[in-house]
Amino acid sequence: MPTPQRIEKVKGLLSLRQPDLRIVLEGVAIAHNASAVMRTCDAAGVLHIDVVSPNPELLTFNKAISTRAEKWVETHLHSAVSEALSPLKEKGFKIAATHLGDEALLYTELDYTQPLAIVFGNESEGVSAEALALADYKIKIPMLGMVQSLNLSVSVGIILYEALKQRWARGFFRHRRLSDEEFESYLRKWLSSPPEGESQSPE
Amino acid sequence: MPTPQRIEKVKGLLSLRQPDLRIVLEGVAIAHNASAVMRTCDAAGVLHIDVVSPNPELLTFNKAISTRAEKWVETHLHSAVSEALSPLKEKGFKIAATHLGDEALLYTELDYTQPLAIVFGNESEGVSAEALALADYKIKIPMLGMVQSLNLSVSVGIILYEALKQRWARGFFRHRRLSDEEFESYLRKWLSSPPEGESQSPE
Repeated sequence: MPTPQRIEKVKGLLSLRQPDLRIVLEGVAIAHNASAVMRTCDAAGVLHIDVVSPNPELLTFNKAISTRAEKWVETHLHSAVSEALSPLKEKGFKIAATHLGDEALLYTELDYTQPLAIVFGNESEGVSAEALALADYKIKIPMLGMVQSLNLSVSVGIILYEALKQRWARGFFRHRRLSDEEFESYLRKWLSSPPEGESQSPE
Repeated sequence: MPTPQRIEKVKGLLSLRQPDLRIVLEGVAIAHNASAVMRTCDAAGVLHIDVVSPNPELLTFNKAISTRAEKWVETHLHSAVSEALSPLKEKGFKIAATHLGDEALLYTELDYTQPLAIVFGNESEGVSAEALALADYKIKIPMLGMVQSLNLSVSVGIILYEALKQRWARGFFRHRRLSDEEFESYLRKWLSSPPEGESQSPE
């Protein structure tokens, strides 16, 4: 049985989760990267992450590093990017694809308070043409260096913390964002998993 | 001989470097982490990184991943944190230590336009008491999740891109921040290294 303290902790954190801010990873090749992205999502209050991979079975995440974060972020596997994005668009989500092209907005110029799925591409090739075609926005992180590349989880962190700041300023963390039904459902699920590994995670 | 295009590129990027915004890594145990931090520093325009390690010879960085970024960020090794911070304080730098204590400022509340060295600690233990004692500010990144831990390079990225935004708004990227002497010295050094690996870096 969970202790009253644990119930309060889980309720408190679940109340901060943002169901309408999702991360979509397309063609991520390295499990370590996906794991670091999950920890970042957990820290920034993201509830859902969509992973698009033609071979999702290859993407068993690095258990040594991040089983902890995986428990608290819902992972949805898809074999094609349209399979992830089309149902979200139907629900009213806007799609933002990260992209280094000249026409992309600076990431700070996007309104992150709208229902939003942010697509991050393969570390070497970027997002696919298919994802770009489905995107409402293209956004980019400015890079001033000689090596035009940030680690995937670093890019996710920079963008999610801009989103967090905007949502914080708009009061999105003052009230629970999940419906009663969703809240109770996740609360049961989260409380049923063992509490180990909820503090500092080494890496 | 470098081509005229390469000379222009290196001059342009060197003109964006911020010599008075430094990253100090204390007791970082994993070379992979230090490498990802360097790529982040390169992208955000940081010129100097101080690495404090009692065994710096253990910290040979992961060559497969980041020799590229290492060429463009000056790494200074120290055996004690005071050895890194005291000379900077004498030069007028303020010291900000990342720290999860209740008394820490939110990272967005700090003025990053002052000469600043930002200390990041060991991934499991945080910054040392010695570094905290030398710090002018303590700053923290809010974490809303069950796993109270962000990857080191993600934390560096979140904080550096807040710094970049503040410095951009204050016009710090409109004019070269290095003295003529420093500029010429780094230009010679950077142009003398081979150009490979300056585009996309996979990971």
